[in-house]
Amino acid sequence: MMLHPVGIVRSPIKTQAAAPKQGHEGGVDAWLEVDQSLIDALDGVSVGDEVIVITWLHEAKRDVLKVHPRDNRNAVLRGVFATRSQDRPNPLGLHPVTVKQIAGNRLLVGPIEAIDNTPVIDIKPVLRRFPA
Amino acid sequence: MMLHPVGIVRSPIKTQAAAPKQGHEGGVDAWLEVDQSLIDALDGVSVGDEVIVITWLHEAKRDVLKVHPRDNRNAVLRGVFATRSQDRPNPLGLHPVTVKQIAGNRLLVGPIEAIDNTPVIDIKPVLRRFPA
Repeated sequence: MMLHPVGIVRSPIKTQAAAPKQGHEGGVDAWLEVDQSLIDALDGVSVGDEVIVITWLHEAKRDVLKVHPRDNRNAVLRGVFATRSQDRPNPLGLHPVTVKQIAGNRLLVGPIEAIDNTPVIDIKPVLRRFPA
Repeated sequence: MMLHPVGIVRSPIKTQAAAPKQGHEGGVDAWLEVDQSLIDALDGVSVGDEVIVITWLHEAKRDVLKVHPRDNRNAVLRGVFATRSQDRPNPLGLHPVTVKQIAGNRLLVGPIEAIDNTPVIDIKPVLRRFPA
């Protein structure tokens, strides 16, 4: 199962140290640059849409099974499937965002915490029944 | 970017033809069998939790960029990033479910539309922006 990036995040947030843990905790607007060869796949995406961006958290560790939630060393260790830690066997990020602007193959979305150069794997519309 | 399955779906739904389009449209309860070597990653997952299961939609087509939404041939073609079609460059499924039962490395979750033998890629807790 090989993932092919469909685009890349262009964000003013350059490092993990500067990134909030979640988009709603201080995320910013960032451009998603979608591969030109996939522009047809964006047909129907509109400004104002709520979408879920799936990213590949390229700086995550894949061999970590337990973490201190939210990097709080006083917190009890928890399995990564019970947390949103980026460290996990398959480091996929889920980012619920709003489409703010569209320019050809580029979408301005936010608020998003993914750092600059994070690979984009998928974009899906939010379903009305889908939880935030 | 290589995905390693963390488990597998064991569902009474055996074929796409028998599967609803979304979990809330007739999905069932199904067991997720998590790899024994990853059991520590489940620590803290509890009955009643709302989680997002990410699957690999192994029967999807990856070279499709536009589809008729909901297989309605009368509907205008739309880019796959504006739909939840399983056919898309990286066929990841997002399934918001409730954990119904836990037995060792197995979680009963539902309602879910994923067919039997679908690979499980990740399990994440649903975030609540405004915790009680």
